[in-house]
Amino acid sequence: MNIIIRKAVQRDCERMMELIQELAVYEKATEQVAVDFNHFVESGFGKNPVWWSYVAELTHENNSKEIVGFALYYIRYSTWKGQKMYLEDIIVTEQYRDKGIGTMLFHELIHLSKEMKFKGINWQVLDWNDPAINFYKKFSSVRFDSEWINCSIDNI
Amino acid sequence: MNIIIRKAVQRDCERMMELIQELAVYEKATEQVAVDFNHFVESGFGKNPVWWSYVAELTHENNSKEIVGFALYYIRYSTWKGQKMYLEDIIVTEQYRDKGIGTMLFHELIHLSKEMKFKGINWQVLDWNDPAINFYKKFSSVRFDSEWINCSIDNI
Repeated sequence: MNIIIRKAVQRDCERMMELIQELAVYEKATEQVAVDFNHFVESGFGKNPVWWSYVAELTHENNSKEIVGFALYYIRYSTWKGQKMYLEDIIVTEQYRDKGIGTMLFHELIHLSKEMKFKGINWQVLDWNDPAINFYKKFSSVRFDSEWINCSIDNI
Repeated sequence: MNIIIRKAVQRDCERMMELIQELAVYEKATEQVAVDFNHFVESGFGKNPVWWSYVAELTHENNSKEIVGFALYYIRYSTWKGQKMYLEDIIVTEQYRDKGIGTMLFHELIHLSKEMKFKGINWQVLDWNDPAINFYKKFSSVRFDSEWINCSIDNI
């Protein structure tokens, strides 16, 4: 399987949106996806980017390329630690799971965090998402903390 | 009580760090605070700011001023909703709690989120922090969600 991990570019956005939809189906929250495509592109590749991403690109035998997963992050500022990576989404499309692609993406995030001198990586997992929890447990340095409640105001 | 809410400026950073320490004592995590002061200032007021803040400034009877609280946020990118405010810290120093200062700060955050066209505000609260949970419950539109587990890699 010929997979490379590379930084996302603007033309990847359409496929990334498809994968975001796929993740929402899996997380039982399709009605929650209300992001505007143009705003998504502008937020990643406009004047003041607020997200960055790596994609996993598969080259098929006929040389066509397909994005089969991505990891998208933004910069969190922790008043206890300083700048950290906040991993918003990591997803591999269903057909290509359990082939080490998520691990490749994750290693790239760790590598970049070192390079950027981030003080760590944060993310969240749904408490019933055992496949994801088991995936994260493979990385010995991952800590899990159930002591926090998420709060939100959605209708601003 | 003569209180104004205003945007934080660089000279506020020293007092803000004191309040961050106070919050860490309250959250039983003083050993966690490892942020470097210069990096804190640079992250808020350097070339590429990653955090912004409002402070609550009290003017005493003798006209001296004191910062008694602040709210610090960064921009979260939600792949479901778009740009949101992530409220990292909201704190009022112990002596001045229960006087409506937290509410004033919160209203300012909501006002700004509207102005910035953010798709909402996210934050977290410790599950044993009843005073904070009760404070947030006063805002009828706040949703609480315990379904997520925080994950982190701290030693990059």
